Amino acid sequence: MARSRDDHHERRRGQHAVSSEDVTAKAESSTASEFGLIDWIRRNQPRPPADLAAGIGEDCAVWNHGGDAVLLKVDSLVEGRHFQRRDPGAPGHATPEQIGRKALARAVSDIAAMGGIPRFALVAAVLPQGAGPALREGITHGLTGAGQAFGVALIGGDTTATAADHSVVLGVTVIGEMKGVKPVLRRGARAGDAVYVTGKLGGSIVDRHLTFVPRLAEGRWLAEFGISAMLDVSDGLAQDLWQLTRESKVGAVIGFDQIPVSEDALESGGGDSVAARWAALTDGEDYELLFTVDEFRAADLDRAWPFSTPLTRIGQVTPLRKGEAPGEGNWIEVGGEMRRLERLGYEHQL
Amino acid sequence: MARSRDDHHERRRGQHAVSSEDVTAKAESSTASEFGLIDWIRRNQPRPPADLAAGIGEDCAVWNHGGDAVLLKVDSLVEGRHFQRRDPGAPGHATPEQIGRKALARAVSDIAAMGGIPRFALVAAVLPQGAGPALREGITHGLTGAGQAFGVALIGGDTTATAADHSVVLGVTVIGEMKGVKPVLRRGARAGDAVYVTGKLGGSIVDRHLTFVPRLAEGRWLAEFGISAMLDVSDGLAQDLWQLTRESKVGAVIGFDQIPVSEDALESGGGDSVAARWAALTDGEDYELLFTVDEFRAADLDRAWPFSTPLTRIGQVTPLRKGEAPGEGNWIEVGGEMRRLERLGYEHQL
Repeated sequence: MARSRDDHHERRRGQHAVSSEDVTAKAESSTASEFGLIDWIRRNQPRPPADLAAGIGEDCAVWNHGGDAVLLKVDSLVEGRHFQRRDPGAPGHATPEQIGRKALARAVSDIAAMGGIPRFALVAAVLPQGAGPALREGITHGLTGAGQAFGVALIGGDTTATAADHSVVLGVTVIGEMKGVKPVLRRGARAGDAVYVTGKLGGSIVDRHLTFVPRLAEGRWLAEFGISAMLDVSDGLAQDLWQLTRESKVGAVIGFDQIPVSEDALESGGGDSVAARWAALTDGEDYELLFTVDEFRAADLDRAWPFSTPLTRIGQVTPLRKGEAPGEGNWIEVGGEMRRLERLGYEHQL
Repeated sequence: MARSRDDHHERRRGQHAVSSEDVTAKAESSTASEFGLIDWIRRNQPRPPADLAAGIGEDCAVWNHGGDAVLLKVDSLVEGRHFQRRDPGAPGHATPEQIGRKALARAVSDIAAMGGIPRFALVAAVLPQGAGPALREGITHGLTGAGQAFGVALIGGDTTATAADHSVVLGVTVIGEMKGVKPVLRRGARAGDAVYVTGKLGGSIVDRHLTFVPRLAEGRWLAEFGISAMLDVSDGLAQDLWQLTRESKVGAVIGFDQIPVSEDALESGGGDSVAARWAALTDGEDYELLFTVDEFRAADLDRAWPFSTPLTRIGQVTPLRKGEAPGEGNWIEVGGEMRRLERLGYEHQL
């Protein structure tokens, strides 16, 4: 029995990282990013400077400076969307230390997604007044601990005190460098390329959204190997594939059964493997790498992959067909049937 | 009749940029910056990387990259502290466009204070839900307009929707470059140097806090001329002199009558020139340049200064005396008497 779109959204809401509040905020964010401040800037700004190799639309901006590529990225971690902190029993609850760690790890993941080496971070912290020193100190510990783990020096920032009932917001800017390796953009995928993803997807809400380790070594290795396009899976596989194909002006076909499913997604689905795979397709906050590589190099890639991190081929890049706009030419093969893969999933049957 | 410290604070509160709410937030911010997240990081972080020439404590972090110095700075603009937007009659009220402009101009001012050339900006925007498109579009126009005016390309960012009653917060990261000129740090002042300030100070709340133009040309010229230390006057002359002498581990003596007073400060004080000069000493948000230069080059500097921007010598750098901690060796000569200049002003008589 086919469900309506609203049911899918209901379902999605239940599976996603920080409960229903999250997805509400996320929908708003999608709107804002498409029609809001940043997208407006992208459309209306005068011609970018000659030394800016990539700007808005990529995981990081790329600045050609001093004979190398410098990566620049800002990412905001927001209470109520990316974590909860007031109710220890709530899904997505995080300690102050976990909040600081996650804020830095998310931004570092964008550096990993271009094959870069993260170097520095600046933090703009918005903290509610009267939250006490434990919050501030815990966040600080989380930031500095993660900085040491990922090789990032914290070189500046400021703290803003807002009203006591405001949300905690951490805006983290990370600066990375490529050291002679070409950064991998989202926009390089070509028809015929193979589509891969690292790790296993879905169910990150259980705890992986707080404990994930950005795929720095894997991303770097892939950039050195030479792949065509990459981004990190932060909004869910379906949505991030939409981003990649939109920027590359191509389509894609992936196989539902090829999507690697995490143990957490399986357990959350009570062992229902279809539900779990649906979660793997649409859940956010995996922080795995989604990338494309020339079909003729795919076998080499499989053989040479030196990591214990799972590597899964999930599909193929296709040309856009007549009438398909960039990002709207994604399809998924489910039980022998081809279905249109939309940004938030597909019309599925249970 | 000598007033108590509390009276001074009362007075200061009345004069400062965004009314009493502002100063409350500012005091909190001082605490946070001294004892909070950023200062904690400064004290506890492992040894900074070799290519980081300056980090926390300067107007910008300085990264030696590709044979040049790259400047990195994050600065947050906060509703209720740096502007009001809900009550058009309130002091410090700003339109959405003015909010965007100010957010970028403040961060650019820090680049100016090192003699740098601003290049790129990333924006982390926190906007209350339901504020409508006018707020977002106005802020965007303000940001892009200021970007064009100051030569800054907006290369990334994100927008976070928070609850409807939350404050607007814009975290702006600016990246600049030195192009062969040595960045001017806060920590280079030496005993005997002359102390200068550009422009006229005080009363910025009237409108200059929204309309100021960062002193990019002046800062660049000063860096090329060769001065010993510089920062921008954002927290008020007394407090920023405290920052400069603290970082340089020196003292200073300035003359009360030498402080250049803005028309706005004079008018706000109802023509009371002492009150106006007190405002010029303690008001924030001037975004002028406070700098020190070798005494033997001061006359050259005066002669060579090519700008219509006023340039005023206000005092001299001194060695710290026995028992004076860095930042606590600042004095002000008022009516022939030497008074200790504290971070927030001095014990003055009216």
